[in-house]
Amino acid sequence: MSGTRRAVLFDEDRPLRLSTGAELAPVEVAYETYGELDDDRANAVVICHALTGDARAADWWGTLVGPGKPVDTDRYFVICANLLGGCQGTTGPSSIDPRTGAAYGLRFPLLHMRDLVAVHRALVAHLGIERLHAAVGGSLGGMQILQWALDHPGEIERAVVICASARLTAMNTGFTAAARAAIVRDPDFHNGDYAAHGTAPRTGLVVARMMAHLTYMSEEALRRKFDRARRDPDAAMAFADDFEVEHYLTHQGEVFPERFDALSYLYLTRVMDYFAPFEEDDLDMSAVDTAFELLSFDSDWRFGTEHSLHMLARLREGGVDATHQEIASPWGHDSFLLEIPAYHRAVARALAVPSPARRVADPPPPRV
Amino acid sequence: MSGTRRAVLFDEDRPLRLSTGAELAPVEVAYETYGELDDDRANAVVICHALTGDARAADWWGTLVGPGKPVDTDRYFVICANLLGGCQGTTGPSSIDPRTGAAYGLRFPLLHMRDLVAVHRALVAHLGIERLHAAVGGSLGGMQILQWALDHPGEIERAVVICASARLTAMNTGFTAAARAAIVRDPDFHNGDYAAHGTAPRTGLVVARMMAHLTYMSEEALRRKFDRARRDPDAAMAFADDFEVEHYLTHQGEVFPERFDALSYLYLTRVMDYFAPFEEDDLDMSAVDTAFELLSFDSDWRFGTEHSLHMLARLREGGVDATHQEIASPWGHDSFLLEIPAYHRAVARALAVPSPARRVADPPPPRV
Repeated sequence: MSGTRRAVLFDEDRPLRLSTGAELAPVEVAYETYGELDDDRANAVVICHALTGDARAADWWGTLVGPGKPVDTDRYFVICANLLGGCQGTTGPSSIDPRTGAAYGLRFPLLHMRDLVAVHRALVAHLGIERLHAAVGGSLGGMQILQWALDHPGEIERAVVICASARLTAMNTGFTAAARAAIVRDPDFHNGDYAAHGTAPRTGLVVARMMAHLTYMSEEALRRKFDRARRDPDAAMAFADDFEVEHYLTHQGEVFPERFDALSYLYLTRVMDYFAPFEEDDLDMSAVDTAFELLSFDSDWRFGTEHSLHMLARLREGGVDATHQEIASPWGHDSFLLEIPAYHRAVARALAVPSPARRVADPPPPRV
Repeated sequence: MSGTRRAVLFDEDRPLRLSTGAELAPVEVAYETYGELDDDRANAVVICHALTGDARAADWWGTLVGPGKPVDTDRYFVICANLLGGCQGTTGPSSIDPRTGAAYGLRFPLLHMRDLVAVHRALVAHLGIERLHAAVGGSLGGMQILQWALDHPGEIERAVVICASARLTAMNTGFTAAARAAIVRDPDFHNGDYAAHGTAPRTGLVVARMMAHLTYMSEEALRRKFDRARRDPDAAMAFADDFEVEHYLTHQGEVFPERFDALSYLYLTRVMDYFAPFEEDDLDMSAVDTAFELLSFDSDWRFGTEHSLHMLARLREGGVDATHQEIASPWGHDSFLLEIPAYHRAVARALAVPSPARRVADPPPPRV
């Protein structure tokens, strides 16, 4: 329980070279660690958070991460950092641009998934760790892990990639496009310079979140929680939040701007839109030695099982050790944050598989 | 091809009494007719439009309505009216309130599905017609027909209710809640009095439409039309509408405020939220004599087959003659506007079933 720490991992003398060729400095990273690194530095587990997460993994993922939990902090040295482009302590588009003394705004460079990985790798090196026992992440977090493992063989022994995707669908991108439209068309957006105007595109963020939140839930989850229940069944018809589902979504929307930044929303959703590692011309998986466990939830319609099966097929075609399990859960995409026994067992098992180094040198051909 | 006509169906001396008890006057209705009413006035077919439609059925539903089409204007006298609460010529919340000389705004009364039906019935009576050969409608249009047939036995011989619902899910209401939030939180909304401010909540409508439009399409439709295609595959990453799906949604959003009014969007979506005819305490279907044909599309995830099956079950429990057909189509909710042979055959067949009067007096018990 060390609290969030910060490290400047790139500076003017050694800037972060982005995948576009642009340079960024300084890059500060907010991170937390849990547990103790063992003497041979072999028990580190990186947790990668989703779109709106932060470094406090034991808080937002307390169901999975903690003493005695599947990601057991009595056993593993757990590291979680806020993403590059984020707004929870790591450098992002609302950070101060040292060249101007003002927030970057839309002058912040567009990011590729590789750039997010570069910062996480720098943090791991900063902590003196060369090889991770595992990396575990859901949604955007899982996508980062996939990129990392594909690009840097030898660094991640086990990857647990949960309700992620290697290829957003047009509908996925459509939903984030609508969310971004709500933000950039908010008159308080000021072309990204809202900080200089002493404001923020609050309405845009509220609407973006209401819509996004719906897509993280399933029809079944919404039916169980709310169905058609009204706040006051005897009241006359009204536009106010009469149905419980409206009240809930409004609340989710209203609290969101308190904890999340509009520019980070733009940049990080865009990272996902462009993420398509298996469609890159120079993809070479011959050296990838990570053991992948892909998990999906049967009621997730944002990044459902078909996304995991696509990753599974591509990884196996590339000769990579990958398995997949679909978990039954009525709770949609949000399931990855919940305590679902079969899911937790799968994560614990995935962290316990023998490391690649201890396997036979030439594994049998993958079962496709 | 008579063009849109208008009729004042309710006025100060004979106001429209709404289901809430409120009175509304004047109520003017914009409508079109196609074809000729036969001598025994037995060939009238009412078309009910969906949320953002209008009276020009042969335009927006030209695939289905016209000479030689399933709703054959050489054979039927086809009537289509803009909805109460709409913005295409029929009285709605942006009409002038005669008491103030200004637009109603949010002072317009909330509407129930019955109120929309009351205005359509008044138009049919105005045209000298007592009994409809059929009523045909998709989505909100189908819901109106259901309400009409349940409340007024003897008036609709055949009802073709396409991708409709008798009970919105929490997800359905959630999506309209997010859309309404985009509108009412737009600073140009001015609590509904935007006309008096010489403006309109354009941004809210654009965002609402982008989101809603996505829900009218299917994953498969979006994949076929756009997949991950980019406008310029060689361009650098950008926030602008780089992906074709974004470009398309932005276009759909941008053109929407040109043809639709924000207050009508609020009022008509709210009618759907509250619509739950089978959950009313005093429901009595014993006299309902309409033959229902319920149609749904297998890729529609907004008002999919489960909604039609729910209506089918309730109607049959009430002893009402109802059949259902699920049509295979990859195009989602929007399928009802498209030329799909099996769908068009089903509509044509439904319009040709013998009228209830010509059937045996005591039909066999329904097959549930």
